[in-house]
Amino acid sequence: MRIDVLTLFPEMFEGVFGASIIGKAREKGIVELNTVNFRDYANNKHNTVDDYPYGGGSGMVLKPEPIFAAVEDLIRPDEPRPRIILMCPQGETFTQRKAEELAAERRLVFICGHYEGYDERIREHLVTDELSIGDYVLTGGELPAMVVIDAVVRLLPGVLGNESSAWADSFQAGLLEYPQYTRPASFRGWDVPEVLLSGHHGRIEEWRRRQSLLRTLRRRPDLLEQADLTPEEQRFIEEERRRMASESLSGRETERDRGQ
Amino acid sequence: MRIDVLTLFPEMFEGVFGASIIGKAREKGIVELNTVNFRDYANNKHNTVDDYPYGGGSGMVLKPEPIFAAVEDLIRPDEPRPRIILMCPQGETFTQRKAEELAAERRLVFICGHYEGYDERIREHLVTDELSIGDYVLTGGELPAMVVIDAVVRLLPGVLGNESSAWADSFQAGLLEYPQYTRPASFRGWDVPEVLLSGHHGRIEEWRRRQSLLRTLRRRPDLLEQADLTPEEQRFIEEERRRMASESLSGRETERDRGQ
Repeated sequence: MRIDVLTLFPEMFEGVFGASIIGKAREKGIVELNTVNFRDYANNKHNTVDDYPYGGGSGMVLKPEPIFAAVEDLIRPDEPRPRIILMCPQGETFTQRKAEELAAERRLVFICGHYEGYDERIREHLVTDELSIGDYVLTGGELPAMVVIDAVVRLLPGVLGNESSAWADSFQAGLLEYPQYTRPASFRGWDVPEVLLSGHHGRIEEWRRRQSLLRTLRRRPDLLEQADLTPEEQRFIEEERRRMASESLSGRETERDRGQ
Repeated sequence: MRIDVLTLFPEMFEGVFGASIIGKAREKGIVELNTVNFRDYANNKHNTVDDYPYGGGSGMVLKPEPIFAAVEDLIRPDEPRPRIILMCPQGETFTQRKAEELAAERRLVFICGHYEGYDERIREHLVTDELSIGDYVLTGGELPAMVVIDAVVRLLPGVLGNESSAWADSFQAGLLEYPQYTRPASFRGWDVPEVLLSGHHGRIEEWRRRQSLLRTLRRRPDLLEQADLTPEEQRFIEEERRRMASESLSGRETERDRGQ
């Protein structure tokens, strides 16, 4: 896969794209990452890429010409147009499903603004996707582009080895991950749940599945609506919901989900 | 504000924390940012910070000792315990409200795992918050920590100057931002909407508000439920909803939201 990123701050990408799994994927030749400073495409003597908004208002707006020129310079005329992704708060909320969709592409182009708006003609006539990574305000599109690239690159064949990860288990299965423990078995008096030391694979699996269900119910009940549950698991969840409701009425605390 | 980040990949943070608005906030002394490689706190000869999970399974789990030791080394015994934030997919979804809450703190500590799980005792006995930046799978907690730090630091007094931004307008007002345009007035035959060139401030303001409402309705109708709308705006939204429903039935396209 080839990924190009248009940004006014290419130096922000070096540490992230050089390190860790993305860095290894580049070394292996699985992904080619390239940053383009679109200020190099400013067609005026002051190299300005932004200007005041028509109609007034605070803030500046990124001009269309440099961004159109930078994108067009990346794509050969005979080439099919790649996905051109604008990182912006107005975009579609990025999800794992979108990461999977983008991972199937051969080429991606990202456009990152920085504490400025985009001229609307960029949205209407240049980009194919507008993405937001969440409902919070950031200083620019650079970190969001890195987040999307990280999520996409780790899905490419050959990138992840045996590091099949806790990070992967959540969301892909539709439930939050169960509690994990490693050595020491007792740390400052806090012990690993006995079932995990029992060697009974069936009991361990059942405990983990129930812990996943409980954690998801308590933290992200919205995820349960789309999870793939057996009838028995649905009954378990319903019982637990009733128990939580009666406890919150009586004000009692419970340690039942702590693995005892 | 002082921010410490525990990570196995401190080099990932250099480019981001050095550049742009976060870099300026550091230069001005508004924020002090510090990375700690918790591998330095591994208490064994191979410097390992992870181990196999009890109960079996793929993937590795971060051990409790190095992370407890690294955090405790950052905090003087007489100091009040700061917010200690674990970046993980099982965490509470980060929002602008959470950014505002964290911006009121004097000190934050972030813990970033990397394609590994955390020993549950870290969650139960060390951290005060668990945060996720969205429903997608990443290779580690480093990019999520940078995202949270960016959202928090830009809220600190003195960080943003007159760069009051398009990025800020969305979410803080509860609606997506209206379309922005800058020069040239005509680019490749695509013209700026006439109203923005009219000089009638009242009409411009009304157009912008309606465009915000339309864009939010089409892209993020979930945001409208919490937006602060006048009765007239609510009627406008209801009409538009009906119009969209009848259009989707008849299959017609509309250009009405394009600013014509």
